Amino acid sequence: MQSSQALKWLSEEYFDLNGFHVDVLEKPPTPLEFSRLVHISRPVLIKGDPVGFKAAPNPGLWTDEYLAETMGSRSISVAVTPNGRADAITTGPDEKLYFAEPCVESMTMSDLLAKLSDHKRGSSENSETYYLQSQNGNLYSSRFFEGMDDPSEFEPLRRGVPSEISWCSQALDRTPDAVNIWIGDEKSVTSIHSDPYENVYTVIRGEKHFTLLPPTEGWCLKERTYPHATYVRNIDTCQLRLEPSPKEVAPVRWSSVADPQLPGSLSDKAHPIHVVVKSGETLYLPAGWWHHVQQSGKTIALNYWYDIEMRGMAWVLLSFLRNVKEVPSGNEDDMDTKDQENTID
Amino acid sequence: MQSSQALKWLSEEYFDLNGFHVDVLEKPPTPLEFSRLVHISRPVLIKGDPVGFKAAPNPGLWTDEYLAETMGSRSISVAVTPNGRADAITTGPDEKLYFAEPCVESMTMSDLLAKLSDHKRGSSENSETYYLQSQNGNLYSSRFFEGMDDPSEFEPLRRGVPSEISWCSQALDRTPDAVNIWIGDEKSVTSIHSDPYENVYTVIRGEKHFTLLPPTEGWCLKERTYPHATYVRNIDTCQLRLEPSPKEVAPVRWSSVADPQLPGSLSDKAHPIHVVVKSGETLYLPAGWWHHVQQSGKTIALNYWYDIEMRGMAWVLLSFLRNVKEVPSGNEDDMDTKDQENTID
Repeated sequence: MQSSQALKWLSEEYFDLNGFHVDVLEKPPTPLEFSRLVHISRPVLIKGDPVGFKAAPNPGLWTDEYLAETMGSRSISVAVTPNGRADAITTGPDEKLYFAEPCVESMTMSDLLAKLSDHKRGSSENSETYYLQSQNGNLYSSRFFEGMDDPSEFEPLRRGVPSEISWCSQALDRTPDAVNIWIGDEKSVTSIHSDPYENVYTVIRGEKHFTLLPPTEGWCLKERTYPHATYVRNIDTCQLRLEPSPKEVAPVRWSSVADPQLPGSLSDKAHPIHVVVKSGETLYLPAGWWHHVQQSGKTIALNYWYDIEMRGMAWVLLSFLRNVKEVPSGNEDDMDTKDQENTID
Repeated sequence: MQSSQALKWLSEEYFDLNGFHVDVLEKPPTPLEFSRLVHISRPVLIKGDPVGFKAAPNPGLWTDEYLAETMGSRSISVAVTPNGRADAITTGPDEKLYFAEPCVESMTMSDLLAKLSDHKRGSSENSETYYLQSQNGNLYSSRFFEGMDDPSEFEPLRRGVPSEISWCSQALDRTPDAVNIWIGDEKSVTSIHSDPYENVYTVIRGEKHFTLLPPTEGWCLKERTYPHATYVRNIDTCQLRLEPSPKEVAPVRWSSVADPQLPGSLSDKAHPIHVVVKSGETLYLPAGWWHHVQQSGKTIALNYWYDIEMRGMAWVLLSFLRNVKEVPSGNEDDMDTKDQENTID
């Protein structure tokens, strides 16, 4: 059996056994219930204030006015792109494909909220797209749990956000590695990728639309390697342009599927699952699951990343699924015959 | 990458990450702690009456006299072989290799105990080997938990044996599929194999010596297919002889490694773990782990088999590890060139 056959075998068997099933819980799980769900490692939609906000200032009160007033003149770091596609594959000035990181600019919360569109599509007139997605533990990082200094751009919002989710911390026997706030609108799209974290993702305002694939179907996403680039703002024209990074910056491995929802973009062996997470709902997104994320209107969300259990088989299997095949270059000029033969389509 | 390389890659990565580690707990785990251990799926040695015998008549009182008296003249089914190797690969009268099932004979508990040797090796003078290993839920089967009639040859012993282990049932959210009693001595050896069950194995008297390999190292055990045979007793001579089964009986897939402890019998890529389980101790043996078992002196044990979680990845992965390669015949005459090429050594 060749490795491409092995990957197909695993993904078919996994789908035959699990189908499209997503558990829906009407109330938060107990630590024991969640531990069992982590072992199964399938997405779960959880209702009923699973994060425990009722014990903290209610984020239902996180109106634009509340956020702007609470954050005041503090500077926050916001990702800016011309097209809403931060951390995604983009054609560069030389017609080559790049993995493009956003331009990160400082502004106030009030500035950010003014730039985002409201529920009605198109109400924003900005040609650029703004997305608060700093995802570096912007509310709480592991330093917080180690009792170290853990400065946050969003320090005034902390009193409304539990630093951990008790049923999750107890189930996993650890504190979060990072807690992040995300604020954006429908102009921002998160390209499909996977993280080596157990992820608890809760929506405060708006809606998140997830397209999910299990770790076994990663081969359907045709990963390639791309040179790295970053959007920078030209001081004279004030326009964003994509600047390829120096050669020393390692190329980035990323899916070449820009939008898994577009007909024909995925192999018919892929079985994408669509989950809408509404205000007040929470998604458990298991480690290694591929996710493409869109938003409806102005959307505020929090996520809690917990380290994956490294003991046992889970990590080894995720590595296997990603490393059993060589990943060719995403730019055809760079591909030699051997790379092309290794491509699974 | 060929499937043989895939299997080697998985076993090396798994060993690099997990090594020979076996957790030792000084007291029984809570349901949540055990749920986490099941997710890790590594063997765990548990001390301190984990089964909860203290609440039932103490099995420390399971002396020969107590067992003989309690069981009285009831018939029990005992496996008899000429060599102590029930369910193992054995040369048949035609010099071919067979998977040999034992002769099952009825006797009283008192008969069985008299035939077993005590702690001093060689104190038994029987040329045949007796092992109570009926393993069909001989104490409690799933019928018991479904509220159905569940007759047991060992019904009088039930009052000393909890029908389930509360921390295990709670962690796995299910009742056992089978609870078995095992009684044997050092003349019996259980050949290396794996079961699709979470197994909680507790020793009441004597010692069990487990040689364990993780599911990823199954390829080191050189599975082959063997025709089926059963020991039968000749009415005239009273001797046991191995009788090949009719051709309709499916061949059995089994490891060709007779004793993984013999130097050179395993690939140097295998990392066997030796665990001695003493009286009063319990081994959590995760689903899919390979085990070869010996005993020191007269040994009484109980085991609780719980169904593996079928949702998620665990079952799919165990299937993959066993099915990625074709399994050739264990008798050379049957092997064609293709089979031999498929053999991993």
